[in-house]
Amino acid sequence: MPTLEITEQHRVHGGMLSFATHRSEATASSMAFSIFVPDGEGPFPTLYWLSGLTCSANNFTEKAGAYAHAAKLGLIVVAPDTSPRGSDVANDPASDLGQGAGFYVDASQSPWKAHFQMETYIVRDLIATVEASFPADPTRRGISGHSMGGHGALTIAMNNAHLFHSVSAFAPISSATRSPWGEKALTAYLGNDHAAWERYDAALLLALGHGKAFDDILIDQGLADPFIDTQLMPDLLEQAAATAGQKLTLRRQPGYDHSYYFIQSFIADHLRFHAERLKAVVREEMTA
Amino acid sequence: MPTLEITEQHRVHGGMLSFATHRSEATASSMAFSIFVPDGEGPFPTLYWLSGLTCSANNFTEKAGAYAHAAKLGLIVVAPDTSPRGSDVANDPASDLGQGAGFYVDASQSPWKAHFQMETYIVRDLIATVEASFPADPTRRGISGHSMGGHGALTIAMNNAHLFHSVSAFAPISSATRSPWGEKALTAYLGNDHAAWERYDAALLLALGHGKAFDDILIDQGLADPFIDTQLMPDLLEQAAATAGQKLTLRRQPGYDHSYYFIQSFIADHLRFHAERLKAVVREEMTA
Repeated sequence: MPTLEITEQHRVHGGMLSFATHRSEATASSMAFSIFVPDGEGPFPTLYWLSGLTCSANNFTEKAGAYAHAAKLGLIVVAPDTSPRGSDVANDPASDLGQGAGFYVDASQSPWKAHFQMETYIVRDLIATVEASFPADPTRRGISGHSMGGHGALTIAMNNAHLFHSVSAFAPISSATRSPWGEKALTAYLGNDHAAWERYDAALLLALGHGKAFDDILIDQGLADPFIDTQLMPDLLEQAAATAGQKLTLRRQPGYDHSYYFIQSFIADHLRFHAERLKAVVREEMTA
Repeated sequence: MPTLEITEQHRVHGGMLSFATHRSEATASSMAFSIFVPDGEGPFPTLYWLSGLTCSANNFTEKAGAYAHAAKLGLIVVAPDTSPRGSDVANDPASDLGQGAGFYVDASQSPWKAHFQMETYIVRDLIATVEASFPADPTRRGISGHSMGGHGALTIAMNNAHLFHSVSAFAPISSATRSPWGEKALTAYLGNDHAAWERYDAALLLALGHGKAFDDILIDQGLADPFIDTQLMPDLLEQAAATAGQKLTLRRQPGYDHSYYFIQSFIADHLRFHAERLKAVVREEMTA
């Protein structure tokens, strides 16, 4: 049984929000996450949210406005930190590498490989801890995320399609191998063997048919996002989906940027998208 | 015409959120606020939100989840900083005084009086700037706030009932003259003449009938709030309202604490309360 320590709790929207830490064998470190659990018996379907570069577990938890909707839909929502942390964990923030920048890959290169095993952390240690300690239904899991975390959600879902039943993303890095942020991270964490990179390119996985387990993939992208053309390139996802005959719904949102103001504007749609696919038991509105 | 500089803008929930700074004569300083404006012609009714101790304009703006509802209700929402700021502005954070702790009073004592004229800032300079620069209807203003800002909303509304048409609060300091935070602030800002304090005690103003312009006053108070008995004392508001024959709706919310998780859980109710009294033109739901 994984260790778990609840570090903070708040009642919110008729449910309970907890911040927790637990020991991860994958990252050989303590890891932090937040989890919202609706009141009631459960088990509840569970949405895992992966955050973007520089984020901790707090950004989504404080700013996304998700829990009003999660309470009504009867969804657990889990938001892990984006990397291991601490003085013994490698770091290079000036290069967008290290703490807060795990890119949801299992690193093979020094000095990163000692702690940066974020794919295994999410799919093995985080899920195991959540399902051992909270009323999370192991047969109903969805995954979503933003930017680097949108890349993480798409690649983790497609590489682990037996674990997840729904996937969506906000402003994802669509093709990490063709994004300057992604190239830098993949080079540092995986080295120069580009064959090892393919597992972590959402558009490539999609084109190869790895999204077929999902009846649809919902993507929102703000058209005033300063990173759209240089780092995110949502057209590549659309093209890959067409190549594979995969349904993908890319919504281009005029005027919206890359911030949590964009995310909070459309989070309700994503939660409903997941709730439908995870057969959530929608409740009465919790507050009048 | 007051000067105004827009420092940051984000599209959110089908409206525009701006952060702005402007020169205030009252505080003899630059002041910061955020403002959400729904799309469309206006003029819109406007809710002023006053934040609590240590807060800036950002806390409510990022964490309250208000704009989804404001967009639907057709409300402008303005969240000013809680005090003047800067190296030339007096400060004593160790004593909960100064920057971030203006208490919404007009200070008469040195060193505070040079800049800490927060009541006049709100009722004169902030309103004038907002109504000169945004489509805010000068005949339809409401005011609300949290903790120190709940005290500010109640006292400012009752002392300036000609300016406001609706008032509510979350976990307000109900009687600043009987709260340790309030006593410390009133002593520092107003000196030892307790007659000068009466203007800044919400329960006292209410008992004296100064709430009569308002058909109802909505208060939410979390019962797991660690400050409820020592600093906030909501019973004093209820007793004062009974004394004055004033309608006041005090909702005690089991399990909720003093955080923005509490505020976000009930902000929709408050926005609806104000929208009804400000005759807002409720729109279609902005996002499906």
